[in-house]
Amino acid sequence: MQFDRIIKNGTIVTASDTYRADIGITDGRISAIAASLDGADDIVDATGLYVMPGGIDSHVHIDQPSGDGIVMADNFETGTRSAAIGGNTSILAFCMQEKGDSLRHSLDVYHAKADGNCHIDVAFHMIVTDPTPSVLGQELPALVEDGYTSFKVFMTYENLRLRDDEILDTLDAARRTGALVLVHCENEDAIRFLIGQHEEAGEFSAKSHATTRPIAAEREATHRALSLAEIVDTPIVIVHVSNRQAMEEIERARVRGSKVVGETCPQYLMLTADDLDQDELEGAKFVCSPPPRDKESQDACWDGLERGVFDLFSSDHCPFRFNDPEGKLNEKGKKSFRWIPNGIPGVATRLPILFSEGVQKGRIDLNRFVALTSTNHAKLYGMYPQKGTIAIGSDADLALWDPNKNVTITNDILQQGCDYSPYEGLEVKGWPVHTIVRGKTVVMDGEVTGQKGDGKYLPRQKSNLVTSTPV
Amino acid sequence: MQFDRIIKNGTIVTASDTYRADIGITDGRISAIAASLDGADDIVDATGLYVMPGGIDSHVHIDQPSGDGIVMADNFETGTRSAAIGGNTSILAFCMQEKGDSLRHSLDVYHAKADGNCHIDVAFHMIVTDPTPSVLGQELPALVEDGYTSFKVFMTYENLRLRDDEILDTLDAARRTGALVLVHCENEDAIRFLIGQHEEAGEFSAKSHATTRPIAAEREATHRALSLAEIVDTPIVIVHVSNRQAMEEIERARVRGSKVVGETCPQYLMLTADDLDQDELEGAKFVCSPPPRDKESQDACWDGLERGVFDLFSSDHCPFRFNDPEGKLNEKGKKSFRWIPNGIPGVATRLPILFSEGVQKGRIDLNRFVALTSTNHAKLYGMYPQKGTIAIGSDADLALWDPNKNVTITNDILQQGCDYSPYEGLEVKGWPVHTIVRGKTVVMDGEVTGQKGDGKYLPRQKSNLVTSTPV
Amino acid sequence: MQFDRIIKNGTIVTASDTYRADIGITDGRISAIAASLDGADDIVDATGLYVMPGGIDSHVHIDQPSGDGIVMADNFETGTRSAAIGGNTSILAFCMQEKGDSLRHSLDVYHAKADGNCHIDVAFHMIVTDPTPSVLGQELPALVEDGYTSFKVFMTYENLRLRDDEILDTLDAARRTGALVLVHCENEDAIRFLIGQHEEAGEFSAKSHATTRPIAAEREATHRALSLAEIVDTPIVIVHVSNRQAMEEIERARVRGSKVVGETCPQYLMLTADDLDQDELEGAKFVCSPPPRDKESQDACWDGLERGVFDLFSSDHCPFRFNDPEGKLNEKGKKSFRWIPNGIPGVATRLPILFSEGVQKGRIDLNRFVALTSTNHAKLYGMYPQKGTIAIGSDADLALWDPNKNVTITNDILQQGCDYSPYEGLEVKGWPVHTIVRGKTVVMDGEVTGQKGDGKYLPRQKSNLVTSTPV
Amino acid sequence: MQFDRIIKNGTIVTASDTYRADIGITDGRISAIAASLDGADDIVDATGLYVMPGGIDSHVHIDQPSGDGIVMADNFETGTRSAAIGGNTSILAFCMQEKGDSLRHSLDVYHAKADGNCHIDVAFHMIVTDPTPSVLGQELPALVEDGYTSFKVFMTYENLRLRDDEILDTLDAARRTGALVLVHCENEDAIRFLIGQHEEAGEFSAKSHATTRPIAAEREATHRALSLAEIVDTPIVIVHVSNRQAMEEIERARVRGSKVVGETCPQYLMLTADDLDQDELEGAKFVCSPPPRDKESQDACWDGLERGVFDLFSSDHCPFRFNDPEGKLNEKGKKSFRWIPNGIPGVATRLPILFSEGVQKGRIDLNRFVALTSTNHAKLYGMYPQKGTIAIGSDADLALWDPNKNVTITNDILQQGCDYSPYEGLEVKGWPVHTIVRGKTVVMDGEVTGQKGDGKYLPRQKSNLVTSTPV
Repeated sequence: MQFDRIIKNGTIVTASDTYRADIGITDGRISAIAASLDGADDIVDATGLYVMPGGIDSHVHIDQPSGDGIVMADNFETGTRSAAIGGNTSILAFCMQEKGDSLRHSLDVYHAKADGNCHIDVAFHMIVTDPTPSVLGQELPALVEDGYTSFKVFMTYENLRLRDDEILDTLDAARRTGALVLVHCENEDAIRFLIGQHEEAGEFSAKSHATTRPIAAEREATHRALSLAEIVDTPIVIVHVSNRQAMEEIERARVRGSKVVGETCPQYLMLTADDLDQDELEGAKFVCSPPPRDKESQDACWDGLERGVFDLFSSDHCPFRFNDPEGKLNEKGKKSFRWIPNGIPGVATRLPILFSEGVQKGRIDLNRFVALTSTNHAKLYGMYPQKGTIAIGSDADLALWDPNKNVTITNDILQQGCDYSPYEGLEVKGWPVHTIVRGKTVVMDGEVTGQKGDGKYLPRQKSNLVTSTPV
Repeated sequence: MQFDRIIKNGTIVTASDTYRADIGITDGRISAIAASLDGADDIVDATGLYVMPGGIDSHVHIDQPSGDGIVMADNFETGTRSAAIGGNTSILAFCMQEKGDSLRHSLDVYHAKADGNCHIDVAFHMIVTDPTPSVLGQELPALVEDGYTSFKVFMTYENLRLRDDEILDTLDAARRTGALVLVHCENEDAIRFLIGQHEEAGEFSAKSHATTRPIAAEREATHRALSLAEIVDTPIVIVHVSNRQAMEEIERARVRGSKVVGETCPQYLMLTADDLDQDELEGAKFVCSPPPRDKESQDACWDGLERGVFDLFSSDHCPFRFNDPEGKLNEKGKKSFRWIPNGIPGVATRLPILFSEGVQKGRIDLNRFVALTSTNHAKLYGMYPQKGTIAIGSDADLALWDPNKNVTITNDILQQGCDYSPYEGLEVKGWPVHTIVRGKTVVMDGEVTGQKGDGKYLPRQKSNLVTSTPV
Repeated sequence: MQFDRIIKNGTIVTASDTYRADIGITDGRISAIAASLDGADDIVDATGLYVMPGGIDSHVHIDQPSGDGIVMADNFETGTRSAAIGGNTSILAFCMQEKGDSLRHSLDVYHAKADGNCHIDVAFHMIVTDPTPSVLGQELPALVEDGYTSFKVFMTYENLRLRDDEILDTLDAARRTGALVLVHCENEDAIRFLIGQHEEAGEFSAKSHATTRPIAAEREATHRALSLAEIVDTPIVIVHVSNRQAMEEIERARVRGSKVVGETCPQYLMLTADDLDQDELEGAKFVCSPPPRDKESQDACWDGLERGVFDLFSSDHCPFRFNDPEGKLNEKGKKSFRWIPNGIPGVATRLPILFSEGVQKGRIDLNRFVALTSTNHAKLYGMYPQKGTIAIGSDADLALWDPNKNVTITNDILQQGCDYSPYEGLEVKGWPVHTIVRGKTVVMDGEVTGQKGDGKYLPRQKSNLVTSTPV
Repeated sequence: MQFDRIIKNGTIVTASDTYRADIGITDGRISAIAASLDGADDIVDATGLYVMPGGIDSHVHIDQPSGDGIVMADNFETGTRSAAIGGNTSILAFCMQEKGDSLRHSLDVYHAKADGNCHIDVAFHMIVTDPTPSVLGQELPALVEDGYTSFKVFMTYENLRLRDDEILDTLDAARRTGALVLVHCENEDAIRFLIGQHEEAGEFSAKSHATTRPIAAEREATHRALSLAEIVDTPIVIVHVSNRQAMEEIERARVRGSKVVGETCPQYLMLTADDLDQDELEGAKFVCSPPPRDKESQDACWDGLERGVFDLFSSDHCPFRFNDPEGKLNEKGKKSFRWIPNGIPGVATRLPILFSEGVQKGRIDLNRFVALTSTNHAKLYGMYPQKGTIAIGSDADLALWDPNKNVTITNDILQQGCDYSPYEGLEVKGWPVHTIVRGKTVVMDGEVTGQKGDGKYLPRQKSNLVTSTPV
């Protein structure tokens, strides 16, 4: 047999298996796996490395309008470059409908930003902010047909949140069409109420971001979203879960018979509300929603990764520059935490953190690592088997990991648009030393070897949760 | 000692005790309890009877405007008369704020309806439908001062429901003022959604009332109300709970440390959704919200009464005439269940049903019966120790029960304004043969012996839940 | 009316009511309660005091053989004297069957110790250690007839513990006879296993008493006892619960439909395992089983008292002298924690601790205090209405409490046989200044005014849990 | 490349992946997987078939002494033959220590029965019935070294059950040695008690087998086993779980942080206690322990397979002949259910039942099917990656499934030693038409094509649960 490229002597890891074999690549796809392969000029030596499916980060905000003059720190070029540095080969970014706009118009704008600028493959979730009858009745079904098979709704943020009736209608449109809905669960009214209380009490600093978005507000919205989905009878994804109480809502819904997928993120394993409580707006670097909680919640999230409460581990990358008047340090943000843009960068650090803290510390095994960071995303969001595994016929999207490489995370090495990392100084063991997209090396040893345009837009199938059974 | 009246030879039952003793009454109050009392011309022979605190029904709708031309079947005269027939000596009725009106204006109108027309004592909860800053900031505190210490909010009914921000503000006003908030928990948007689905599917009959208000909609709103109260940090009352899932929300909130009181009603012990599934709008007789559920939910509600999930057993008396174009059989109601007025009569049947089905069948003891039907209401709603017990200094509000009297419930004997009872034909064992308000017999052996005006309006103290600890 | 004695101007508190009234006493019983009573030479001025039912401590070990030469520090004279000091008017002590002896023989021996020596009334539970067919089939039913209506079994202590088959047979005998079984729930085999591990590891000090009896061992035995009772279909009492996990077992059993009563004790509110970790065997003063746990468990036990997980608050008084070679400081105890006698004194401090820490700090109200410390004990153990309340016909067993009296607890004032109190130095607010047994003052202002022999033995009726419904 | 054999055109299914590829086999192992392979004379056409890892049944009783003259219906020849018919390529059978014997002696006897007689590969769990210090301290560690890495203990059966102290010691020996313990959880004493009650009441028929082994007895023992393992701090496997209450114990233990694996079996999905309630001892055909429960429990077990409560789906094959005085119809069994041998056949029907009822009905997907029936067993019991997957280097143990083949189960086609199947007449869709052990076809189209001796004994590694993290 002849191959375009062979990955030799590595240890292949999939969501279920770990074994020594060579991989043959033809036309960007995996064409053979065998004890030993020959027949290619281009040989990648993977001796001592794990050969894993490239990471898929299904929760990434890139170049998304925020409406108040604040500019997101990553465009598709920088965002996908940093993702590749961190071992990813695909991301799903959010295309936000601006109120009054059609979904299709928003998509056109977003495609214009992405097309030709990506280092790795990308697909889009739509954010529905204006679920008019025509949006839900006509646009949404047409988009599902076109491969935009997942939609996100917000229960928080004054300008984005949907009311329950709008959520019900959106879920119902998804049910009819076979789309999947992701929900950001926090009770906006409760948060507004607490912000009012805090500001009345003269509390304006970043740490109040955490106390005005308490666990009860997340737990409430989580249960509500699950109940609305139960009433509509359609599956949902609860994104970025931060604590045990919200986890329990997911588990209770499953016992009631609901199909629900849970996601958590590195910030809920590594940060706490104490990180927000720093001088000079330093705390603003850690402002994201839901906010990081406490040690007990970190333990709970680890427990959820181990026990299967969570099937997804994503970054919720949502970068705003720190030393920049149009980012975290904006004028209004200095006046009150209310105006600090919500979101932190993380697309490059997601995989090394989980590998080092999870796999190396014995909390999860290698196969679960692959499932949580790649395979489950691909299956859930209609990209499998093209993406998310190492199998015959699948795209040769691979990350080669050196399990023994020690790295101290600094923002420099992440090559992102953002000017800081919340994990600055963190030492990790294990690093993706080689990122391959459809057979082509896009990053090697921390150097970008590909160019923008290597990554393509990826239309998607329906979710396996819609067509059959849970991951 | 001299007394105005002596109750002789009865067995006194309070929320904790059961013992043989005579009761001496002076100026409408209990002045002595002893093994044997003499010194009165007026002797009531209670041989073979239980002498209990008169029932307090803290959840009664009387002469309440409904806004769409439907007329409630009871005014204060008929409503309190029927209550007295059923062994009650006080009721708490709901004074509803009409949107745009001040609370005070609504109260004036309501007092005009009640004053001078009652057979037993009455007090008012306010229903807040329009929580403007002046209503919450100025009117509500002033009303608490005046003895209107509890307020109800609705999460359902398009014209009554409050949004979460309004509920938060109302709870916060209650917290600042020491008032207690009752919440009707059903998710209005979910119900609207399901009504739409049903009508689209051509389902218009009364049974759809039950399927469009599923347990999930009640559970969701219950958890949300509890979460909002947790965030505001104030106690609440969850009224008319119909099923185990909502009960579990109450129990979970208590484990989290919340102060919450639960209430259930006879319809959730005795009726099911099958009762709504009858020909010719007969099912309309059983339309109330939340709807009756199933056998399993009935068992759950009994369990809740036994285990202390519920501290209150009330009627949610809300009567609409059946054979009357302005009641259950209205023109619009025939077109769709959506227009059938929500509510059933029950102020007279509450106590006999619980006595017969609960005490006689060994599910609860006599003391728990008194607690659930009288003492807990008095303590929770600021009427204790004037009302709700048999103790020195308390009003001589008594019901004498013949535990061996068998009665078949028919609407005739209930002497209410409504033209039907949902419990028509039910056989009960045990009946309140003598109702005494502040020392005066108002009903004896099924005959009204008092007259309207015997009952007084009763200003109230703050709830014991606000001033100290749970019942 | 004429009375032997009148308690004037006090505030009467029962398990449900609080009101100002005078109490008339005739022949040792309460004969009248009225706004104002005259007609006695003997007037007790209770101005400013709460007049409560005397405490009933249903979990007290007195003069009980321990089989290994260790002598219990209280006989009936000192034990009941100290109980009276602490506001109690009755205790239930444990009569232990010695293996091979008949129950009747054990009772004869125990009566000989008690009769004529008590300052307050006493009744006996039997401890069954040798449940032979004749013990269960013949003796037990006869004893129930004679008023010994409750039996305790142990799941721990090598010489006392029953195996599951023996527990099943004992529960079944109780079910047939209408007796009530109390269970000490700790898994003996697990404890033995851990003691072995500890001693192997060279750990012999008192603190290992706590680590060898972990929560898991208590939770396991609690669930097992509840399961065996469920299988036999008979109610049980889970005594001295120390933590949330065991509480959850009780609540789960209730949801399954079981009748179960839970008890906790002052040591689980006030002490922790840290108290055992002291130099020079000082920790031995706090050795009891189950051991005190941690702050979180203390909070859980308070929560259980508030939410009704617990219906009983008892002392588990089980006194061993400290400065005494035949007590806590015995030779073997110095060699290993294994030999330190299990048990601490507490019959005098139970009520002041709950009053000060519970009522004064707003965790429970006065009525719940009475229920937890007196009324529920009387009802559960067949002593009601003779004991446990203030009602016409009941024994005039009263404790007059000065809610404003500040007392620093020292062993001196407790007048017990034991030479230390685990609560030495604790400051409490509120004290029982006057203890009255059947109308006679036995303690006033800390002085014993009665004499041994004032207290009588009290045969009991069947439990209300057996004859009807739960407290 | 050259291969001994090629599986062409099939759809490969693993625990995580599904894809079209050819498989090349060399020396009994999988040497290549590719889009298309050539280079072998021996080609198996798998067009239209699923190529799955052969089933591993880790819970099989074969030729096991039962001590009371009753003879098990399968020896290794018939048992492994029937297993192969049903798509299995390995089984784990139980080698039972007879009391007084050493483990090694029992093993020698068992090896003599198995060696040379098997159609598929076999490995052994040891059943520990006599955990003496030498058994636990010397034999057990030596056996683990030799590849016997899992041990089973019983909490039921008078002659097999271990007491808690023995279980603790066995778990502790396992912990020290890195072995894994399986536990049969039913409370023997409770069962004895209920058997006594039933026989006293004159109830002797087979249906009493179910009522004397209630859910409470299983739940109790499950919680106890989990608690003992928690105290020892070692993982365990809870085998053949039959109902939701026991499932909840497993989930609660996981939340507490325990490592525990759950198993269920076809009988708990397909049978109920009603099957035991038949005339003429027909019910004896369904006597196994725990007994089948009810429809609600079946639903619970399905839920557990879907939600991950269970990681293992096994047969608990334990065959006794029906028409045979030394089987189900033995003399004593006719007198009382107590003597009916416990166990039913099922090694051949396990996979088709789960495929048809689970995969075809959309409850689980193909990958979960493979995980539950093969991969998880291999990983948990130290046989991975040699067994349990389709990967380079793994044994070519394959089952080729025709998903569209309809089969009516009759005992004839199962080729087992037992003379009946509890699933006689069941229609299934999907059947393993070709079973391959280490590259050799042992069954094709229902015909045995191999011979005894094809199967080898398989020493095992330590469990992945012991060496790292849960499946």
